Amino acid sequence: MNTFGTLFRISIFGESHGKWVGVTIDGCPAGIALSETDLLPDLERRKAGAVGTTPRKEDDLPTFASGVFNGHTTGAPLTIIFENNNTRSADYEALRATPRPGHADFVLDKKFSGYNDYRGGGHSSGRLTVALVAAGVVAMKVISNITVQARLVEAGGNANIEAAITKAVEEQDSIGGIVECRAGGIPVGLGEPFFNSIESVISHAVFAIPAIKGIEFGSGFAAAKMTGSAHNDAIVDELGTTLSNNAGGINGGITNGNELVFRVAVKPTSSTPKEQQTWNNNTGAVEPFTVKGRHDLCIALRVPVVVEAVTAIVLADMTLQAKG
Amino acid sequence: MNTFGTLFRISIFGESHGKWVGVTIDGCPAGIALSETDLLPDLERRKAGAVGTTPRKEDDLPTFASGVFNGHTTGAPLTIIFENNNTRSADYEALRATPRPGHADFVLDKKFSGYNDYRGGGHSSGRLTVALVAAGVVAMKVISNITVQARLVEAGGNANIEAAITKAVEEQDSIGGIVECRAGGIPVGLGEPFFNSIESVISHAVFAIPAIKGIEFGSGFAAAKMTGSAHNDAIVDELGTTLSNNAGGINGGITNGNELVFRVAVKPTSSTPKEQQTWNNNTGAVEPFTVKGRHDLCIALRVPVVVEAVTAIVLADMTLQAKG
Amino acid sequence: MNTFGTLFRISIFGESHGKWVGVTIDGCPAGIALSETDLLPDLERRKAGAVGTTPRKEDDLPTFASGVFNGHTTGAPLTIIFENNNTRSADYEALRATPRPGHADFVLDKKFSGYNDYRGGGHSSGRLTVALVAAGVVAMKVISNITVQARLVEAGGNANIEAAITKAVEEQDSIGGIVECRAGGIPVGLGEPFFNSIESVISHAVFAIPAIKGIEFGSGFAAAKMTGSAHNDAIVDELGTTLSNNAGGINGGITNGNELVFRVAVKPTSSTPKEQQTWNNNTGAVEPFTVKGRHDLCIALRVPVVVEAVTAIVLADMTLQAKG
Amino acid sequence: MNTFGTLFRISIFGESHGKWVGVTIDGCPAGIALSETDLLPDLERRKAGAVGTTPRKEDDLPTFASGVFNGHTTGAPLTIIFENNNTRSADYEALRATPRPGHADFVLDKKFSGYNDYRGGGHSSGRLTVALVAAGVVAMKVISNITVQARLVEAGGNANIEAAITKAVEEQDSIGGIVECRAGGIPVGLGEPFFNSIESVISHAVFAIPAIKGIEFGSGFAAAKMTGSAHNDAIVDELGTTLSNNAGGINGGITNGNELVFRVAVKPTSSTPKEQQTWNNNTGAVEPFTVKGRHDLCIALRVPVVVEAVTAIVLADMTLQAKG
Repeated sequence: MNTFGTLFRISIFGESHGKWVGVTIDGCPAGIALSETDLLPDLERRKAGAVGTTPRKEDDLPTFASGVFNGHTTGAPLTIIFENNNTRSADYEALRATPRPGHADFVLDKKFSGYNDYRGGGHSSGRLTVALVAAGVVAMKVISNITVQARLVEAGGNANIEAAITKAVEEQDSIGGIVECRAGGIPVGLGEPFFNSIESVISHAVFAIPAIKGIEFGSGFAAAKMTGSAHNDAIVDELGTTLSNNAGGINGGITNGNELVFRVAVKPTSSTPKEQQTWNNNTGAVEPFTVKGRHDLCIALRVPVVVEAVTAIVLADMTLQAKG
Repeated sequence: MNTFGTLFRISIFGESHGKWVGVTIDGCPAGIALSETDLLPDLERRKAGAVGTTPRKEDDLPTFASGVFNGHTTGAPLTIIFENNNTRSADYEALRATPRPGHADFVLDKKFSGYNDYRGGGHSSGRLTVALVAAGVVAMKVISNITVQARLVEAGGNANIEAAITKAVEEQDSIGGIVECRAGGIPVGLGEPFFNSIESVISHAVFAIPAIKGIEFGSGFAAAKMTGSAHNDAIVDELGTTLSNNAGGINGGITNGNELVFRVAVKPTSSTPKEQQTWNNNTGAVEPFTVKGRHDLCIALRVPVVVEAVTAIVLADMTLQAKG
Repeated sequence: MNTFGTLFRISIFGESHGKWVGVTIDGCPAGIALSETDLLPDLERRKAGAVGTTPRKEDDLPTFASGVFNGHTTGAPLTIIFENNNTRSADYEALRATPRPGHADFVLDKKFSGYNDYRGGGHSSGRLTVALVAAGVVAMKVISNITVQARLVEAGGNANIEAAITKAVEEQDSIGGIVECRAGGIPVGLGEPFFNSIESVISHAVFAIPAIKGIEFGSGFAAAKMTGSAHNDAIVDELGTTLSNNAGGINGGITNGNELVFRVAVKPTSSTPKEQQTWNNNTGAVEPFTVKGRHDLCIALRVPVVVEAVTAIVLADMTLQAKG
Repeated sequence: MNTFGTLFRISIFGESHGKWVGVTIDGCPAGIALSETDLLPDLERRKAGAVGTTPRKEDDLPTFASGVFNGHTTGAPLTIIFENNNTRSADYEALRATPRPGHADFVLDKKFSGYNDYRGGGHSSGRLTVALVAAGVVAMKVISNITVQARLVEAGGNANIEAAITKAVEEQDSIGGIVECRAGGIPVGLGEPFFNSIESVISHAVFAIPAIKGIEFGSGFAAAKMTGSAHNDAIVDELGTTLSNNAGGINGGITNGNELVFRVAVKPTSSTPKEQQTWNNNTGAVEPFTVKGRHDLCIALRVPVVVEAVTAIVLADMTLQAKG
């Protein structure tokens, strides 16, 4: 299913090389000032263009198909549409026999009995994250007292991002990275004890972003090596402020009012320029394989704004639920 | 909300020191042979008793309240109930003024305006995992061709678990650990491209388990430091078998038929025997604080069977959905 | 699925001749004063005992398994359990070969491949409405400004209920009836334009009650014979008060602040004392058939309190959503 | 919320006088042959043009924005978009102060704090049913063994539809009607005992259609006046065939394999040419009021194809669930 959320609910649609990509936001409160230009800064942050990103560039101009009237949200479903205008489908035709390693080609072909749109990953393409970013901007306006900021803190194992990219370009091999997200101004009490713990819901949303393979909250995996006396955050006032923040702002699945902190692991772009091996369905043998098409060398560079977007979407939904 | 799943749906209820704890499974297919004794081995694995676990022991005898007739599931909601018979509520009365560091005391009090059952964590207690384990046994029978096995691979930063526990007992401080879960026999095609990626749904379920603060699939966080040519798993036959398994059995959010592999980080038990500091609402000051009651020194010891249970619940649900 | 609702969500479980019948309410706000005795008046109204109802009587004493502490709801799942203590399963053993006309015996056997608990209708029994009534009492406390009242306005085609029952007893044949429900104090704005119109959600809940075969809002079926100028309700003040109420308090699927009015058609009890015909799976022929067991001659007598309950459940859920 | 369904899930968006109206179908199986022209016959049936319908005509040409590739569904979200090209917004500007009787103007203004798109009913317009009809065509292909047919059986209280329309045109007053829907080829076992009874789910979907105020299954309201011996349908073979069909093909909320039959009551079009009374927010008084714009005199004429569509949507969803 391509829908996420309970009261602030988003649904995405579209394919990498189809006509349109879009998102419908259902449950957005009425009366929020919103114009298409409000979306441009975050859409720009997501765009390719920097060293290490794909040469494919889209205009990424959003159109409101519904849900906005006289410059404000109406409370009706808000659909935002993007035209795909820079596709080179021919790049992909030759690859049908040889599923690209690391990509979803093989599983999509099996899951959809060969009927999936295989061009550029079809519906599974990172292209769809443009819709997530658009919805994230709207979500951010719903939770205007909360700040959400994500940044790339490590690429290719190196905390110096620029150096890492330079090395990847030299070696012509793709690299991964780690994105850290921090959210401030969060009230105490978002999240539920078990299945809708804030970690459950954030991780559910974050793993919708292609290429993410891990998430940790607060001290995360480092906590597994700590003692309880070192890990516990001492509460120091009646607001629940803690001296340290090993919990990442969450106790028992519920926000505690301190900064929400999590990190995600982004794998290296599957489409590396390096030669690889894969199965060839036509020849029935493993054969050398080289990716064609235009790709990001370090997709992690473009992930922070998407992580911010899905985090804002989660927080908007849980904020509306908390009022219920 | 305390419900999880779409077609195989579980709801849990109960409190640590209440009368009963239980789970309702809605959507369990009819005709599965099931008796209360089938649940005992996994319930036994979850129990306390080993060095490093709490002296509180429950009988943990399950009763089928509904949904089983003549030794088989009926297709109607299957409710399993456990009596709480070993509670010492008096242990907790004194602690109301001083929220325990690392615990949910503070956030529950705020979220539920002081009406939550504060005894032993109330509904947020690890006691509720007995219900998850029971549901997991039923789920495992729904997906009888799939094997799910989790084990503690590291405690207190040490791969020698016994040594780690011995050290924790000597130092009288709680420790965390890392649990690895592997599932075999999984068909190609479970999971959806975006919001219901298999990583999204498994992480959603896994973060329902108290004390878990991180999850990674396949190479996980290590992937962030790898190059694409090293990380990509070469496909070597028409079944999609891969030479390596850095993807942990998942491409594009969908199972690829290889072993599903993930690891979770378990934080040290919040109730450490060491003295700590916390806010005292009565005195309006930070004061020294020592936990009372009976607790696990390394809760991670009891987590593997719960991780298996929620994984089986996810796979049962997604298997039923894949038939739809 | 046996769950209903979005923020105030109820799940029912149990069988007519099983050990327990129960309901879990998830999402009930914390801090509502509630005791088991609060449930007794409505449970009493649902009970058998009057002329025209079944001689089977249950104690119907509710037990809170979870979710209530110190006389108030805690915000955690609230589970209410009833023991079944007056079952005569032997009555049903002989009937397995001959599906009772009007009952679900035939469809349940097929749907659940013969594994359903066939005693007294199993999970499909009207016995389960005891759980709905219990949940309705809790819902009513959530929407304390709203009044909900249902009554039997017609039985066997006769507006004189007593006369209708007397006639049915004399003729020894079951009869149906019409229940009208009115709710006052409803705010403007509950319900959504399309799929969650207030009519959609109320009818969804009401058709969960066994034996109901029709529902109409306001003028309902009579509206189909009216002209627009006769049917439209003139708005006469700034609060939206209307001169007439042909709309039953609903415009465009949304409550308009006037009284909410709907009527439901209850079919005659399927278990009539009269001889009938049905298929006999053992003999492979249509044969005469007489119902055994204890049954209501006019089940509609016991329906009003259940209609009130599900209406309150819907209104509680939509009220909480409206705050979101 | 504007989404309906569990496995075959539809979401609609758009406004009467906005740029686009559309629907996203999530969960449509891959591999169904589908072209935009397949939708035209049902879209044509829904169109205005006959005597008694509005002079506003739209081209109603559907465009697949996503989810179809090489003439087949891909398994990804299928979005269908319609352009609105025949709007006269000026008709509505003058009416803001005077909520139209029978319409949702008043409730929408309150619910959305005045931010709703008030032109032509905005998102609440019957215009949106074009999206339902489009989704219905796709649903029908999912359940190709099932036939669904609805027709207007009564208008203005008259079984002679033509005569009824002629009279309405003469009297210049809108009229209502009754639509009957019959579905054949339905397997035994769709629907669930309580909350997802087939009556619950069909009525939920049907009441999403504007102007519907009642629904009855099988004998419906007439059943309330019958005796059990007259109402029960005798089962006459091992397939569950019944002699009569008072149950409308449903026992205990579950389809019994006989024809599914239900009727809905359609109220007279709220926009009658007759002068009415309504509150004027500018003058603070009740005043005479005449509707402007172009409207259907008997909207019921255009309802059958929409009833078929939502019925097919429900049956597609329940068929997919039954496989799970």
